[in-house]
Amino acid sequence: MTPSKKSALKENDGVSQPETTNALSISKIKASRKKERSVESLVSAILEGNITALSQAITLVESKNPQHLEKANAIIKQCLPHANTSVRIGITGVPGVGKSTFIEAFGMHLTAIGKKVAVLAVDPSSSITKGSILGDKTRMEDLVKNKNAFIRPSASGASLGGVARKTRESIILCEAAGYNSIIIETVGVGQSETAVHSMVDFFLLLKLAGAGDELQGIKRGIIEMADSIAINKSDGDNIKATKLAKVEFNRALHLYPEKASNWQPKVTTCSAINEEGIDEIWTIISDYVTLTKGNQFFNDNRREQNKFWLIQTIEEQLKNDFFNNTEVKVELAKQLQLIEDNKTTPFVAADYLLKLKV
Amino acid sequence: MTPSKKSALKENDGVSQPETTNALSISKIKASRKKERSVESLVSAILEGNITALSQAITLVESKNPQHLEKANAIIKQCLPHANTSVRIGITGVPGVGKSTFIEAFGMHLTAIGKKVAVLAVDPSSSITKGSILGDKTRMEDLVKNKNAFIRPSASGASLGGVARKTRESIILCEAAGYNSIIIETVGVGQSETAVHSMVDFFLLLKLAGAGDELQGIKRGIIEMADSIAINKSDGDNIKATKLAKVEFNRALHLYPEKASNWQPKVTTCSAINEEGIDEIWTIISDYVTLTKGNQFFNDNRREQNKFWLIQTIEEQLKNDFFNNTEVKVELAKQLQLIEDNKTTPFVAADYLLKLKV
Repeated sequence: MTPSKKSALKENDGVSQPETTNALSISKIKASRKKERSVESLVSAILEGNITALSQAITLVESKNPQHLEKANAIIKQCLPHANTSVRIGITGVPGVGKSTFIEAFGMHLTAIGKKVAVLAVDPSSSITKGSILGDKTRMEDLVKNKNAFIRPSASGASLGGVARKTRESIILCEAAGYNSIIIETVGVGQSETAVHSMVDFFLLLKLAGAGDELQGIKRGIIEMADSIAINKSDGDNIKATKLAKVEFNRALHLYPEKASNWQPKVTTCSAINEEGIDEIWTIISDYVTLTKGNQFFNDNRREQNKFWLIQTIEEQLKNDFFNNTEVKVELAKQLQLIEDNKTTPFVAADYLLKLKV
Repeated sequence: MTPSKKSALKENDGVSQPETTNALSISKIKASRKKERSVESLVSAILEGNITALSQAITLVESKNPQHLEKANAIIKQCLPHANTSVRIGITGVPGVGKSTFIEAFGMHLTAIGKKVAVLAVDPSSSITKGSILGDKTRMEDLVKNKNAFIRPSASGASLGGVARKTRESIILCEAAGYNSIIIETVGVGQSETAVHSMVDFFLLLKLAGAGDELQGIKRGIIEMADSIAINKSDGDNIKATKLAKVEFNRALHLYPEKASNWQPKVTTCSAINEEGIDEIWTIISDYVTLTKGNQFFNDNRREQNKFWLIQTIEEQLKNDFFNNTEVKVELAKQLQLIEDNKTTPFVAADYLLKLKV
């Protein structure tokens, strides 16, 4: 793996490397940062599908440096008219379900039928584990080398909101670079599935037969969000069990009211490792796109998602600004003590805090 | 029923009357409003357990008039040291489960063993139906006449937040007036159950045998919130079915992780109409109180609830202040259009709106 190889460049940029190549990786990243490119240069390269430019732009989006963010916003603004032509597919499933193997097989199938595939991830926990998702590229070795695939690990960050925002902006950049199939991977941690659901057109839930976590899925609303459930590892001795699970999940899905999209969620089985049943999943997604583009849900949903993100961002910022204010912090502690001592009510205390000039 | 009767006064104040007595009711309410009492006079009357004073204070809490609210806050502040000695019990269940009959039987049982019972309700929909819950007093005719019971229908209001706030403040007033068993009733509408759960010590879910809405209860998190499930209408031909349902709900409850209170939720059967199994439910609640007062959960939970209401109230107010600002409304509409035209992203639009001097 030498720095001159295009595929290596694509993989390494912004990704933690195995220990043996860390020094090489760091010097390479530093070198690429020295030659800072202008907004115009980056935008025109992105629109030509240049992977290095795309990676650099995403690095700007993920930066904490205000100047970088300003530059990122300018790039995104110019890319916007060229985005929006893709299908955005969310994929979730518990660890062990075979997500990486599935994305490898699914991505290879999509490129084989002429698609350009970008794989992004939303994993707020990756700030600790340095990109746990997609970090283990050995499971996606064919897709990593594929010239029509772009793989980028999750942005790291303390808050899900921040990570989700960065991923959402990266989608626009990938679409401008000509990727028409955007896969957003997430693990079933906290609210990350809800965040991914609110940025994709189609939500795919990977399951195993007999995992017995249906109640968990119902409770957390994951099954309700799914446009399709694919029961993976349908191979060898496991085929009978996955067929049974298919019947059960079909029954469970019928307990839910009809979706706003008018789409009836489909349950299917697949074996990612044997590359079986993968084409069927793409057919399901294509059917979904045809239906929802026909009945306007596809565009209506993207519009609602944009509105959701606008309101969500404002609300988060209002809360952060208020509760991170030094005076508020001091007075909040005092008011909490007064409440505990039965000397005020939460509502009177709230009025008092809101009247502080913040 | 003449205006001089104490029980009639208690019932009528703030409650919609049957058509035949409306004129009488209105003139009576108007008359009572003329003689406006001072904060001190109301507080001392409340502390003596005067029902008319309590009703008047709750009317001030529910008022939209800023002067009334100021007066209400002063009353609550003086009542606070006298509150907090009660058990607050939330009761929910779908329409038809027999909630009114249950509260009648349960309330009568509590007064029979020497308790003073206040029944309040959280029903945001009551702004339309003018107090649908508890409006049908014919189902609670004994409790209405009971001198140790105080029944007040839901405050009306556009938002659940507003209704919940008023109910929460009314709890304090009722406790100051010597009511030591506070029942908060809600119907399973929207988020009202979550709101009630966050203001009570104990949450009771009423169910019917074979209603088949378990999935709904799991999905909406109601079963997870329950400290006890009582399967009502366990009488006549229905006894066998309720016993079976008891086994099933016990099994379902064991799927959930242990509660922070260390309490294992109990399932029981009852027949409210025959007044059977009602004492058992009070025993369960007493056991819960003993356990949670022993392990500090009771007080810790009330503290957490207060904190929750403080933060919740501030967040709601921050959002209201921002989004109801005239300039924000105009600019928000413009930014949404720009997003739709692909000329900006939700995040850039949010930054722009937040920079408006609001």
